[in-house]
Amino acid sequence: VAGEFELIQRFFTRRVTHTVLSVGDDGALLGPRAGMQLAVSTDMLVSGVHFLPDADPAALGWKALAVNLSDLAAMAAEPRWSLLAIALPEAKESWIEPFAEGFFACADAFGVDLVGGDTTRGPLAIAPTVIGEVPVGSAITRSGAQPGDDVWVSGTPGLAALALAALRGETDLSETARARCLAALEQPQPRVALGLALRGLAHAMIDVSDGLIADLGHIAERSGVSIELADELLPIEILEAATGAPGLARRCLLAGGDDYELAFTSAVDRRECIAGVGARLGVALARIGQVRSGPPAELRVVDRHGQSLPLAGRGYQHFVEE
Amino acid sequence: VAGEFELIQRFFTRRVTHTVLSVGDDGALLGPRAGMQLAVSTDMLVSGVHFLPDADPAALGWKALAVNLSDLAAMAAEPRWSLLAIALPEAKESWIEPFAEGFFACADAFGVDLVGGDTTRGPLAIAPTVIGEVPVGSAITRSGAQPGDDVWVSGTPGLAALALAALRGETDLSETARARCLAALEQPQPRVALGLALRGLAHAMIDVSDGLIADLGHIAERSGVSIELADELLPIEILEAATGAPGLARRCLLAGGDDYELAFTSAVDRRECIAGVGARLGVALARIGQVRSGPPAELRVVDRHGQSLPLAGRGYQHFVEE
Repeated sequence: VAGEFELIQRFFTRRVTHTVLSVGDDGALLGPRAGMQLAVSTDMLVSGVHFLPDADPAALGWKALAVNLSDLAAMAAEPRWSLLAIALPEAKESWIEPFAEGFFACADAFGVDLVGGDTTRGPLAIAPTVIGEVPVGSAITRSGAQPGDDVWVSGTPGLAALALAALRGETDLSETARARCLAALEQPQPRVALGLALRGLAHAMIDVSDGLIADLGHIAERSGVSIELADELLPIEILEAATGAPGLARRCLLAGGDDYELAFTSAVDRRECIAGVGARLGVALARIGQVRSGPPAELRVVDRHGQSLPLAGRGYQHFVEE
Repeated sequence: VAGEFELIQRFFTRRVTHTVLSVGDDGALLGPRAGMQLAVSTDMLVSGVHFLPDADPAALGWKALAVNLSDLAAMAAEPRWSLLAIALPEAKESWIEPFAEGFFACADAFGVDLVGGDTTRGPLAIAPTVIGEVPVGSAITRSGAQPGDDVWVSGTPGLAALALAALRGETDLSETARARCLAALEQPQPRVALGLALRGLAHAMIDVSDGLIADLGHIAERSGVSIELADELLPIEILEAATGAPGLARRCLLAGGDDYELAFTSAVDRRECIAGVGARLGVALARIGQVRSGPPAELRVVDRHGQSLPLAGRGYQHFVEE
């Protein structure tokens, strides 16, 4: 049946630039380049859980793809292709058109061909799958952290959580700060260029989607190491200046999520090189701690005297509490 | 946050046999074999639209993957990998465990590694993505049908629709027929081996998910040809014997969906070869018509005198009418 949902599928059919066969057959055909492995990932966004039902469709379209590309960035893979499965309560063009615009704005920004998908009736849920390429042996995983490594993070994790706090009325932000925080929440920029630039430099990498503590905990667990963050090195200035509430700023930084910055570890003798990457890309990179040999999976934040400080919360909570 | 849904994700973590890096990192890493293109597809199943909310979870797990593998079969691709995004109203082990069992039963049967995915709270929706391999140039698409080709279909399309009719009380079936029809509906067998065997033989291929008429219409449209089916060649005997109602049997055969048989076209001089493939694989293959040069996208069913017969319905309707 060529129903309304098949018609609406047309909004997702665009010219592709590096795909053998795209939308319109039983599946798409891709031709990976020689010497490449494929990195693949899928993250599902559900209305009422990951976003509010009245969320701006254009922002949502961008974000649905961006959070998936962030996973590729965290593996040092180059985004190439995407599929999109989406369930919609109704075939409303006034929603689907801006959603598709937002999705393709992100796809175009990062060189992604949308090659297939499925559109069906149902409670609003968005499930993109992304496929990237990475030269054999060049992927950066969560399990490569080595004792003695520096721990780094890009940008200012916590901006998205601070936006959420402001939306909930828990803090006041200046107009400038509010705009910056909302941009982090609604239009996250996956750190694709940074991920690629860290090939051969970073030992382990993850994107900060669940919160800095929680995500560095994944690296510590998978690498069988402990991680010690130095409180005075944490990039908290922007958050503190925005909210004026130091406790909230710290909670957002350590336990906020949904930012899609990259956290990674690398050898101490690569410090200058890493700093050069940041300068070249115009991305702030903060060296925030060190990898230790044990106990495995432990994560601590210490003051300048080496005393453990209490961790702030356990990680990101979605809009609707799980 | 290591919540209940992250814990439940463990049901989907199994040993892989041909994957560089599986579940547990930002993404999976796959190593396609040299000379291979990738076929990729995603089909989303939503509760209340594609299946009833009380559907058996084990059958649903099988079917969710099977319908996606059917798309790979229709491209003559060998299934290799899958991702699974799933939204669940609650983290109920008594549902998720049999669902995972059914999913992996299908994955194991067809050599598929589940390499990643996402489990989240939300209205029940299941979005697998499948990735297969096909040697460069060997994929079979919808657009290769040539005037003069024979049109073939595997098995008995319509069994699933007949099961649905029986469940709705529209017909009575013997116990044997009912079991056979329900198996077609609940545990479809993607025609993977047939798809692979037709490399180099079929000119165009599609899986019959929307109904024979609708899906052959896709081939006619994409190939710029018309298709003429011979009424007396249609494999209707099993359906007629099952229901005893010739009209219903014909509607199910021509317009029923959800069967996941393969329909394909191939040169007349390959008839014996095709018949041999069917015999070797133990799959019934019926030669049901011919490809004509025009008018493009037209599909007709003719009697033995070449007179057009009325088409029965327009295609498959989901459980819940769209």
